[in-house]
Amino acid sequence: MSMYLMNDRFVKDDEVTISIEDRGYYFGDGVYEVIRVYGGAMFTAEEHIGRLYESAEKIRMELPYGEEEMIAKLARLVADNGVKEGHVYVQATRGAAPRVHQFPGEGITPVITAYTKSYPDHAPAAEPAKLKSAADIRWLRCDIKSLNLLANVMAKQEAFEAGCTEALLHRDGTVTEGSSSNMFGVKDGVIHTHPVSNFILNGITRRVIMQCCEELGQPVKEEPMALEDVYEMDEFFLSSTTNGILPVSEIDGRKIGDGHPGPVTERLMAAFESKLPEPIATR
Amino acid sequence: MSMYLMNDRFVKDDEVTISIEDRGYYFGDGVYEVIRVYGGAMFTAEEHIGRLYESAEKIRMELPYGEEEMIAKLARLVADNGVKEGHVYVQATRGAAPRVHQFPGEGITPVITAYTKSYPDHAPAAEPAKLKSAADIRWLRCDIKSLNLLANVMAKQEAFEAGCTEALLHRDGTVTEGSSSNMFGVKDGVIHTHPVSNFILNGITRRVIMQCCEELGQPVKEEPMALEDVYEMDEFFLSSTTNGILPVSEIDGRKIGDGHPGPVTERLMAAFESKLPEPIATR
Repeated sequence: MSMYLMNDRFVKDDEVTISIEDRGYYFGDGVYEVIRVYGGAMFTAEEHIGRLYESAEKIRMELPYGEEEMIAKLARLVADNGVKEGHVYVQATRGAAPRVHQFPGEGITPVITAYTKSYPDHAPAAEPAKLKSAADIRWLRCDIKSLNLLANVMAKQEAFEAGCTEALLHRDGTVTEGSSSNMFGVKDGVIHTHPVSNFILNGITRRVIMQCCEELGQPVKEEPMALEDVYEMDEFFLSSTTNGILPVSEIDGRKIGDGHPGPVTERLMAAFESKLPEPIATR
Repeated sequence: MSMYLMNDRFVKDDEVTISIEDRGYYFGDGVYEVIRVYGGAMFTAEEHIGRLYESAEKIRMELPYGEEEMIAKLARLVADNGVKEGHVYVQATRGAAPRVHQFPGEGITPVITAYTKSYPDHAPAAEPAKLKSAADIRWLRCDIKSLNLLANVMAKQEAFEAGCTEALLHRDGTVTEGSSSNMFGVKDGVIHTHPVSNFILNGITRRVIMQCCEELGQPVKEEPMALEDVYEMDEFFLSSTTNGILPVSEIDGRKIGDGHPGPVTERLMAAFESKLPEPIATR
């Protein structure tokens, strides 16, 4: 048994009910976040919840309580469910109302739900990831972390069926990001990544990595890069909330470097680990 | 009280329950249709349900029963709910499973839900529609009638707030369709409409109109048209399941023709009415 957050209440999982008229169900009319829990503590919760409220604002949805209260509620959920290593998922939809495209009228309030997931333990990914490139057919507001994820689902499935961990999306020949991650290439000691724009999600883990780069004096170029140039990178890695930094060994069956995490990736992984709520040794 | 279809059962509205793990709720991972009911009979049900199964196939989702059985179930729902004038809405999601992007494993079956809505009566729209142009920021598979409708929602809301009925979407300067309708312009006696492609939904009402044009010897050009040319059209109208043919009087505040339905639109409206299950007079 585990608890869910439903609006401002904590309920048992078998007591969670979603209205069939929820606009999340009809339209994907909502936004979400995933926050990693390390050693029982949420990591970068303020940044994630800040982005949740930004996404909500971008789709013009006003949440019924503020960021601080949201973080407090999620912290309680994490504690109540005894999560040590895992994540908390939270989403907010525009509410339940008879189906019409335009926003519902007065009196309809957003539906907030959250649950936690515990991992067996915290270990770095067993082996580097293989990527499969896929056309980025998503909408033009990928900066909004919305519930419209069908294109991501299709790309991820395509990658899985090719024996890969993640899809590397490219739009008009330019790589953007993964289906649920940001991406970074390393060439001649310089990190390359897509600039923050409407074509990618401004990842929280990406931001932590950029901060690590600044602290390490690691040069970064935020410029669009072509898919064909990606194969020639010395190193490549993904970033995401659930996996942190994930080294990439292959893209479309072509080996990146010697197929093992390179020096820049390893330095960043160490720097990233040092930012986590508690040192691994004490957990 | 009204009945819903839930998979293969008919249940009362207060007994409908959606799992929070439904992939429709997390990802919008599903497809839908709306079928108009005239005089108690579904109109073009085979075409709509055919497209539902096509949409499902395009997202690689296999529905648990076939098209004929689906139509029979919806016909029963319409009858049980005593719908005379109205519509039936049906959607299918990939099923309920713990949240991961890739398809769920074996044993997870799609969730089918359907409801009906009765209208006060069947009357032509009181007055011609006003449109507001809006950027078409949707994904690149608008041919799939999916539950990822946030871009449509935002465009429709923008139109409503400008005192308009519908948004006229344009991508890179080319008009595509409405946020929940197809669109047609008339210039010098020729109808212009966007060709069927991944940029628009191949509307069922659009198909009926094309058939009417063929029967009437009405010339049609299926070619992309520029937003700036739209303002200069002699006539303009929308097509959708719920509204049939809806004449347009204004686009972005600029009058189309003299602001009243033109002769081509009126001829097509009459031809369309003649296709309906029953003549209006007997209903």
